[in-house]
Amino acid sequence: MNDNLTADRPTFVTHLECSMTGERYEADRLHGLSRVGRPLLVRYDLDAVGRSLTRDALAARDTDLWRWRELLPVRRTENIVSLGEIETPLVPISKSAGGGNVLVKDEGRLPTGSFKARGLVMAVAMARELGVTRIAMPTNGNAGAALAAYASRVGIETIVFCPEDTPEVNVREIAVQGARVWRVNGLIDDCGAIVGKGAAEGRWFDLSTLKEPYRIEGKKTMGLELAAQLGWELPDAIFYPTGGGTGLIGMWKAFDELERLGWIGAKRPRMYAVQASGCAPIVRAFEAGEEHAERWDDAHTVAAGIRVPRAVGDFLILRAVRESGGKALGVGDPAILKAVADCARADGLLLCPEGGATLAAYREALRTGEVDEAERVVLFNCATGLKYPMPEAPNWLDRHAAIDFDAL
Amino acid sequence: MNDNLTADRPTFVTHLECSMTGERYEADRLHGLSRVGRPLLVRYDLDAVGRSLTRDALAARDTDLWRWRELLPVRRTENIVSLGEIETPLVPISKSAGGGNVLVKDEGRLPTGSFKARGLVMAVAMARELGVTRIAMPTNGNAGAALAAYASRVGIETIVFCPEDTPEVNVREIAVQGARVWRVNGLIDDCGAIVGKGAAEGRWFDLSTLKEPYRIEGKKTMGLELAAQLGWELPDAIFYPTGGGTGLIGMWKAFDELERLGWIGAKRPRMYAVQASGCAPIVRAFEAGEEHAERWDDAHTVAAGIRVPRAVGDFLILRAVRESGGKALGVGDPAILKAVADCARADGLLLCPEGGATLAAYREALRTGEVDEAERVVLFNCATGLKYPMPEAPNWLDRHAAIDFDAL
Repeated sequence: MNDNLTADRPTFVTHLECSMTGERYEADRLHGLSRVGRPLLVRYDLDAVGRSLTRDALAARDTDLWRWRELLPVRRTENIVSLGEIETPLVPISKSAGGGNVLVKDEGRLPTGSFKARGLVMAVAMARELGVTRIAMPTNGNAGAALAAYASRVGIETIVFCPEDTPEVNVREIAVQGARVWRVNGLIDDCGAIVGKGAAEGRWFDLSTLKEPYRIEGKKTMGLELAAQLGWELPDAIFYPTGGGTGLIGMWKAFDELERLGWIGAKRPRMYAVQASGCAPIVRAFEAGEEHAERWDDAHTVAAGIRVPRAVGDFLILRAVRESGGKALGVGDPAILKAVADCARADGLLLCPEGGATLAAYREALRTGEVDEAERVVLFNCATGLKYPMPEAPNWLDRHAAIDFDAL
Repeated sequence: MNDNLTADRPTFVTHLECSMTGERYEADRLHGLSRVGRPLLVRYDLDAVGRSLTRDALAARDTDLWRWRELLPVRRTENIVSLGEIETPLVPISKSAGGGNVLVKDEGRLPTGSFKARGLVMAVAMARELGVTRIAMPTNGNAGAALAAYASRVGIETIVFCPEDTPEVNVREIAVQGARVWRVNGLIDDCGAIVGKGAAEGRWFDLSTLKEPYRIEGKKTMGLELAAQLGWELPDAIFYPTGGGTGLIGMWKAFDELERLGWIGAKRPRMYAVQASGCAPIVRAFEAGEEHAERWDDAHTVAAGIRVPRAVGDFLILRAVRESGGKALGVGDPAILKAVADCARADGLLLCPEGGATLAAYREALRTGEVDEAERVVLFNCATGLKYPMPEAPNWLDRHAAIDFDAL
C-alpha cells in the first residue's frame, strides 16, 4: 500500500513571505493576503530538505502528489486528505501538433477531473490543520468541484459562488459533492467580492486563488512532477493556460526550489502564458511592458477556466514569463475549438478548451518560428474534455430495415 | 521518461485455447471466437516469464499498464499504442460504506474516462500487429469511446453501433474521436448482430467483447495491478459491475497466472458479480445453479454499462464466481442512485452508476452478513461519474441586491 499518506515525515516550512515586499509572516498560522494585499509564498529550509531527502529516496516512493511531502506545508500526517492524486501522464501528440516534439500533461486524470485538485487538496489539508470549519470560494467551475470533494471528505462546510454562465455540469458536480453552490449574475471577480465581504464579516474563510498561501504549494507539484518524469531535465518550453496563474507561478517556484536542492541545473523552460483573445489582460500587460495587468472588460471566451479579468498574482505571472524568455500569447475561440477537434480526431486525446488553447498557441508559435519543431514542449491540459460540450452525432439506423453496409 | 512504451522486452505467448473445450489455436494469427462459438484465452509460458521477470524488476518500472509486457500478447514494441494508461488509485470510502474496510479502484482515471481503455488499448494494439485496417463494434458507450481514441491514434478505421438510449455524451465522444457512430433502435445484442453480419461479409473485423481474444488480456491488468498495489496480498472480496464480464474473467485469469509465477499464494478474493435488478441474467443463472445464462428480456436500468442481456462468457463468469466462493448479486436502481449520491456527498468521490451498483451491493452484503466489516473489500468504479446525469442545483443570487448572508 501507498505509505505517502500514512508515514510521518519531517517537514521544513520556516516562514511565509509577501511576494511583493518580502515581509516575513509566521508559519502555522491562518493567513490571507499580505498587508499590501498580495499573495504570500511559503518558504522552506531547503538545505535541511536536501540533507533529509534524495532523488533516489523519492524515486522509491509511490508517485502521487504526497510523495513530495518534504516540500509541502502540511505538518501532521493525520491532516492529509486524498482522493488519489496520481502523477499525471505525459501523452505525445504528434499528428495534431504538426510534427513537433510535444507532450500533453493530462491533468484531467486527477480527482474531480482537473488540475484544481492539486491546489485544493493542499488548501483543504492546511485549512484542516489550522482549524478552519467553514470555507467560501468563487469559481469558474473546476476549482469549486475540487474544493467540494475534499472539504466534504473531511467535514468542512463549503459555500461556492459561480458566474452565471458556468457550465451546468460543474455547478451540479459541486452540489452533489456536498457544497452549497450559488450562481451569481456576474463574472468571477464579482463572485470574489461576495466571498470577500462574507470573510470580512467573519462568516467563513476566503479560499480564493492566491488569497490563501497553500493552493500555490499544491500547484507547484506540476513542476516537481514534470522534472522527475523527464529525468530531471526540464523541457524547452511550457505552454500554460493562464487565468489566475497559480500553476505557472507555482511551477516557477518549484523550479527554483529544485535548483537550490541541486536536483536540476539552471536551465529553465520558456514559459508561455496562454490566454483567450476575449480575455487577455496578461497578454496586454506583457506587450505593453507593464508590471501589473489592468482588469479586462467584457471578458468572453469558450474557455471559461481562463476567463479571469483580473489576477491578484499578475506581477508574479509577468515576472516568471519574462525571466524565462517566454511570452504571453492570446488565441481566438475558433482556433481553440479547432485545436480540440483536431487533437481528438487525429491523436485520440480529448482536451478541454483551455488545453485546446495551449495547442492553438503552440501551433501559432511553430508557424511564426517562436518555437522550433525539434524543441521539447509540454502543453498543460488542465481538465478532462468530458466536462465540455461536444458536437452532435446524429446518425440513426433502423435494425428492422435492410442495412446498406456500403453506406455505413 | 517512461520506457515501458519504448523498450523491447521478451514476450511469452505460446498459443490460444478455447475456454470451453481447451482446443488449441495458433498464436500471432487473427482469431474471433473458437469453433464452438466461445471465447479464446491467451496462454503464456509462465515458467519462462518467471525466469525473465521478478517482482523487484517490475517494481522498478513505471506503474502504467505496459509494465506488464511479459504477461501481455503484443510482440513488437512499435505496435504499442498509448494514451497514458496509468495505474488507477485505490481510494478508501469510509463514510458511505458504513464503516467497512473498503477501497474503490477508480478506473475513471484511465484514458477516455473508463476501464474500457484497458481492453481496447490491447485489442487495438493487437489489431495493428495483425494487420487489421477496419474495425466495427457494438457498445453501450464507454467501450466505443476507448476504441475510437486508440484506433484513430494508429489510423485504423472504426464503425461503432450504440443502443438508441446510449447517453448522448458517449455518442458524441465516439464521434469527436474519429469513429463513425450509429444509434440503433435496439439493445447491445441487436447492435452486435449488425456487427456480426458485416464481419461475416468481410467488411470489417468484429471487436465485440470476448469475440476477439485480447480485450480480456488488457482487462486482466486490473487483477495484476491490484495484487501489486496491495503488496501481493489479494483482498478478501471484490465487487465487480458485470455486463459482458470481461474484467471479472480477466482478473480471475490474472490471479491464476500470478500464482503460477509464485508471486501470490492460493488465497483468492470472493468475487461478487454485481448486476442491476432490471438486467440480471447472471444472477438468475447463479441462483438457479445453471452453467449458462439465458437472455434477459426487457432489460432496463440506469446503469447502462451493465445493461447486457446476454454475455458470451456467461459460463466463465459463473465459474469464477462459484470457484471463489462469491455470489452474483442484483441491486435496484434506487439503491444504485442512493449509493452514488451518498458517496459523493460524504466521501467526495463521484462514482458512475455501475460503480454505485457495487457500493449498493456491498452495503446490502454488509447488512445480511455476507461480508464482515473487518474484511478488506475492493469495489470497481468502472468510469468517471462526470459522464452521467446529475441532479440540478438551482440556487441563484443577484449581486446587485443586498445579500442575506445568513441565508446562504
